[in-house]
Amino acid sequence: MESGSNKNSSLLILHNALIVTMDTENRVFQSGAIVIEDDTIKAIGQSTGIISQFSSFSPQLIDFEGHFILPGFINTHVHSSQQLARGIADDVDLLTWLHNRIWPYESNMTEEDSYISTLLCGIELIHSGVTCFAEAGGQHVTGMARAVQLLGLRACLVESIMDAGEGLPGSWTKRTSEECIQSQKELYKKHHNTADGRIRVWFGIRQIMNSTDDLLNGTRDAAEELKTGIHMHVAEIPYENQHVMERRGVQGTVTYLEKVKLLQSNFLAAHTVWVNDEEVSILAKAGVKVSHCPAAAMRMFGFAPVKKMLDAGVCVSLGTDGAPSNNRMSIVDEMYLASLINKGQEVFTKGTTDPTALRAETILKMVTINGAKSILWDKEIGSLEVGKKADIIVVNPSSWSMMPVHDCISSLVYSMRTENITSVMCNGRWIMREKRILSVDEEEVISMAKHASTHLLNKAGIQIPSRINIV
Amino acid sequence: MESGSNKNSSLLILHNALIVTMDTENRVFQSGAIVIEDDTIKAIGQSTGIISQFSSFSPQLIDFEGHFILPGFINTHVHSSQQLARGIADDVDLLTWLHNRIWPYESNMTEEDSYISTLLCGIELIHSGVTCFAEAGGQHVTGMARAVQLLGLRACLVESIMDAGEGLPGSWTKRTSEECIQSQKELYKKHHNTADGRIRVWFGIRQIMNSTDDLLNGTRDAAEELKTGIHMHVAEIPYENQHVMERRGVQGTVTYLEKVKLLQSNFLAAHTVWVNDEEVSILAKAGVKVSHCPAAAMRMFGFAPVKKMLDAGVCVSLGTDGAPSNNRMSIVDEMYLASLINKGQEVFTKGTTDPTALRAETILKMVTINGAKSILWDKEIGSLEVGKKADIIVVNPSSWSMMPVHDCISSLVYSMRTENITSVMCNGRWIMREKRILSVDEEEVISMAKHASTHLLNKAGIQIPSRINIV
Repeated sequence: MESGSNKNSSLLILHNALIVTMDTENRVFQSGAIVIEDDTIKAIGQSTGIISQFSSFSPQLIDFEGHFILPGFINTHVHSSQQLARGIADDVDLLTWLHNRIWPYESNMTEEDSYISTLLCGIELIHSGVTCFAEAGGQHVTGMARAVQLLGLRACLVESIMDAGEGLPGSWTKRTSEECIQSQKELYKKHHNTADGRIRVWFGIRQIMNSTDDLLNGTRDAAEELKTGIHMHVAEIPYENQHVMERRGVQGTVTYLEKVKLLQSNFLAAHTVWVNDEEVSILAKAGVKVSHCPAAAMRMFGFAPVKKMLDAGVCVSLGTDGAPSNNRMSIVDEMYLASLINKGQEVFTKGTTDPTALRAETILKMVTINGAKSILWDKEIGSLEVGKKADIIVVNPSSWSMMPVHDCISSLVYSMRTENITSVMCNGRWIMREKRILSVDEEEVISMAKHASTHLLNKAGIQIPSRINIV
Repeated sequence: MESGSNKNSSLLILHNALIVTMDTENRVFQSGAIVIEDDTIKAIGQSTGIISQFSSFSPQLIDFEGHFILPGFINTHVHSSQQLARGIADDVDLLTWLHNRIWPYESNMTEEDSYISTLLCGIELIHSGVTCFAEAGGQHVTGMARAVQLLGLRACLVESIMDAGEGLPGSWTKRTSEECIQSQKELYKKHHNTADGRIRVWFGIRQIMNSTDDLLNGTRDAAEELKTGIHMHVAEIPYENQHVMERRGVQGTVTYLEKVKLLQSNFLAAHTVWVNDEEVSILAKAGVKVSHCPAAAMRMFGFAPVKKMLDAGVCVSLGTDGAPSNNRMSIVDEMYLASLINKGQEVFTKGTTDPTALRAETILKMVTINGAKSILWDKEIGSLEVGKKADIIVVNPSSWSMMPVHDCISSLVYSMRTENITSVMCNGRWIMREKRILSVDEEEVISMAKHASTHLLNKAGIQIPSRINIV
């Protein structure tokens, strides 16, 4: 596929591809080309025009023979530290999930475990076309950052922050709200804007039931001071709103967070399932971003009013959540699910499903430009436009899983599987080509992960009951 | 991987694999082996024992190095003729879907189109681990049968049958109920038990709104006479029950079908979404089998009471439906979806989701032994047992999409992707090895399908509005 590899030129042209730009005009170039210089998109347009315009620069040319080129997908809610916990909490109730599986797992993790977990998670993210993710909060941001640096991905990293709550493992209850803020400020100093600008550090709040008012206020002020974002799990289960009502005297998490002025345009609310109409308006007015995680929602939380949020003007993006909540960490599958769950749930209000709800182009926006807006990075990523970073994926539609393609946008959303994603570029560098990860050794990571996860489960005393007659 | 290929021996031993038998004792051999002679399983057990027991027969040995071996999956509701229509009816309401897209498509199909469509569909089925499917009803059974013969799959084929209804394309309204029955009897004579016994012919009824009482009665009697099954779409949308109430004076389709004595153990009801508690009891008592199609349900029909049906003792299996209803034709994805949708929908009755609903082992039964029972073929397929046919799939769990595996059964259901399915055997013959289809030329089929589908859409005058700004 490659030709003209003049080493003196720093220009790379990907051409003869269907380019879905996701720009403000929603342009799709049927036979398009994109010019990349270092980490940046220098030009985009019709293949023939671009090639003749740039031929004198002796660019390196790659002919993509009709493949599709898109902006890298953005997964806005990922517990990268939980990748080693895939399958440890399937088919159990929420309390067992949290108290007997996830908390023991997380509280026993070392920084090295977190590093390996993020490496394994990153491999799955790359295979599913993700070039950037928003971490939902883990114990060891330094471990995550090492992995992200190596993987070549872009990420907003967040520490898992709690300064209150019942039943927490012993080692977690010792931190004051001040210590929580201080720890995050240090992480910000250490990692923000590192890895060629691919890593940003945000503030995290695990959830309202694990937060004092001091923590909420301190987080708001610290994030404002450092001009960064806040990532928090919001209104996940009905009990959460009940808890807020009992302890804080207002109807639910969203209402309370507005009261303490946490809801601003730098706030990313994950899940956000149990919100009423008024709270949807609050989110819209405040410019809050929502990460909708369809698989985790169906399995554990319930059906978020996504259509209502979109109609109200809320910027909604998509997330996979963590491996023990899903278990697939594929944003490609979440697109498909976002369609199904939001078409289907209309049956409960209208009496019939609405197959026209959440059209394919809306869902494609959620994983690209809305993702970028959700993580305050849309000036640089989320669409293929001149001057933006070269975060790009290549899709081969000519296989059994997508053929025939009568409608390229709906094919990308409803038919595409991870199998169709062949190449991934982040920040101008190929991190996957022909389905092979270039930035890390996949087999080595898998082997490390097998060993680390077995060791971690033993250490944490997590036992998974056998469900079948093993002989 | 292969060794000891003594050509004189007709015995094949697959060994050193984790074998999930799905037998009545739910046995899983951690290091198991399976012996195959011609099309039949001759022995199954611990690897070491089996190898020493059969070594004197000079068998051909394949070492599967810890891969998982399972019974081939059974997809109990497939419109194989609709594969060329993938993406022609996305994000449109049900009437547009039917009248402006699917009916024009189906009524313009030739036998050759149907052959090509089933070939393309079969490729997707094989990649997703399916060795047997129940056709939901298409126009050209002879075209389907040619394709199934070539693909090496097993199938229960069904003609699309309607003898009444409003707004049908002209060419379809001419058949009397008698002609419908006669046509199917001839197809039975021509194709039943052909392709080394891999093809069976069933009777089809598209749905109650397209059926006279003569057709219902005639189908019941003819299927009884030929000792074969009946496949019908049942209670798909609320309007269907309303229609039955208005025209036939009882509460819904299931109630009416019981009245005319159609509900017997040879009856496979697809979808079966809009049924009340009493109708669930009727289905259970009659021994009716239900094909649950989670993706199509969420997108178009609504949430079937699957947990209630299983609790009542109904044999429920899984289906993908057709490409324009889904758009993925992957039973692997349907397993994942069946879990999510049935855990999630509890929120509407209980107020919270139930992550313990439809456990992984239940879902695995749905695509194996329940699938076999649903199509009246469980004496020969659906589990790995001595004397049954060698319908087998091989799964490689050692990849980014499944690792780590802490719980092999839940990993198969919730984490596995089609990418993990490496080999497929049907009736003792490999039809896929190392992800390469052996029975047909995949690229040639894709190329034929592209051409045929474009031609068919033109002929049918189907236009798909552009949803994006193509330049």
